[in-house]
Amino acid sequence: MMLDKGLVLMSDTRTNSGVDNVSVFRKMHHWSVPGERIVAIMTAGNLATTQGVISQIEERNKAHADRHNSLLEAETMFQVAATVGKLLRETIASSTARNGEEAASTFTASMIVAGQIKGGEPRLFLVYPEGNFIEASFDTPFFQIGETKYGRPIIIRGHDRDMSFEDAVKLLMVSFDSTIKANLSVGLPLDLMVIEAGKFEPAHQRRVKADDAYYQAVSAGWSEALKNAFHALPDYSFYTK
Amino acid sequence: MMLDKGLVLMSDTRTNSGVDNVSVFRKMHHWSVPGERIVAIMTAGNLATTQGVISQIEERNKAHADRHNSLLEAETMFQVAATVGKLLRETIASSTARNGEEAASTFTASMIVAGQIKGGEPRLFLVYPEGNFIEASFDTPFFQIGETKYGRPIIIRGHDRDMSFEDAVKLLMVSFDSTIKANLSVGLPLDLMVIEAGKFEPAHQRRVKADDAYYQAVSAGWSEALKNAFHALPDYSFYTK
Repeated sequence: MMLDKGLVLMSDTRTNSGVDNVSVFRKMHHWSVPGERIVAIMTAGNLATTQGVISQIEERNKAHADRHNSLLEAETMFQVAATVGKLLRETIASSTARNGEEAASTFTASMIVAGQIKGGEPRLFLVYPEGNFIEASFDTPFFQIGETKYGRPIIIRGHDRDMSFEDAVKLLMVSFDSTIKANLSVGLPLDLMVIEAGKFEPAHQRRVKADDAYYQAVSAGWSEALKNAFHALPDYSFYTK
Repeated sequence: MMLDKGLVLMSDTRTNSGVDNVSVFRKMHHWSVPGERIVAIMTAGNLATTQGVISQIEERNKAHADRHNSLLEAETMFQVAATVGKLLRETIASSTARNGEEAASTFTASMIVAGQIKGGEPRLFLVYPEGNFIEASFDTPFFQIGETKYGRPIIIRGHDRDMSFEDAVKLLMVSFDSTIKANLSVGLPLDLMVIEAGKFEPAHQRRVKADDAYYQAVSAGWSEALKNAFHALPDYSFYTK
């Protein structure tokens, strides 16, 4: 999510291949050079694909010889998004080539790329499996990937570009809580990161576990708050014209 | 939606085959024999399929010779759901047979069957394209078909079996409003019907158009009510453990 103050990122950690094979994997990754750049990637889709892309990024960052292809050397966030897109497309294509076209949809994945490189503003991209990407603006100030629908209405209503980081975190927790209550494929813990504009390292990071007191307060309080909101609306009458 | 008092049904009227071909069609139909039965069907999916099924039901109801296959003669709501399921499966199968297996998904549709026949309770069924069906109970007291996800969290939180019909209508309007704000494939007007247990005709019916004063009050008021609910939640702090 884009704010005037920076970026707020949240991802869950649940992966599944069937309801009897559920695991916890990190889907948020970041790299930073203090004072110079921070790049974060969140992933959705086939885990082998997304781990493959993240591993390749890690290797390039470490291999000095290939430093010109590294996210740590890219000159702009646009270049970062293009590199991630290329890696994602190639990773999906190579899995598909080994397994036949009909398996293509199995290996699909998408990513959100967020961050800031010195000399530029904080930027937010949604990278498609095809390798192309779109950028958020204050007309469309947030992206979701994966199980997007349940949590979308509350973000549409609640987002405000000048809201505080704290309110944005609260909003994302409400959104995730709605999704988690509706769909088994999304689950705790959540990973949270705040990127403050002009500060090239995470301003705040937390793993929100099931016993997190604040998450529990939001989850329990939201039911009550919604009930009050609901009763605050005018009552329907059968006899109104 | 099932309540202790009866059933509350709501459907939108938007159909589309592409964003440049959007039309208004009724997706809620009902038949009643005052004092004896009321049966309502709501539809989602391919319009030719769902209109085909509804037309066949209409013809059977009119043709006295075929009266034993008519919804107006079925002895229980279970029989009604079975008949609707059979018609739905056959209609999809005949379109598929004419057009080849690969077109099967084009013709798919699903239906919600609701109503009461004298001697039984009000009952609610979800009928699948395959013709089989499931029945709601107070463990799972509502069904959605079509674009279900955006509007689901608020129903999960808000449903209460002993709520009034008026509150149930308010809840469904909030749910539809969230979906309409998030997705172009769902749109006004909405059709609303209340079936009161033991009263074998609609207790209340309305077409909710864009200029409906109550809908507008809910739609505008919900944003404000949600903001208040949001602020009523405890604030997040970067420094909480």
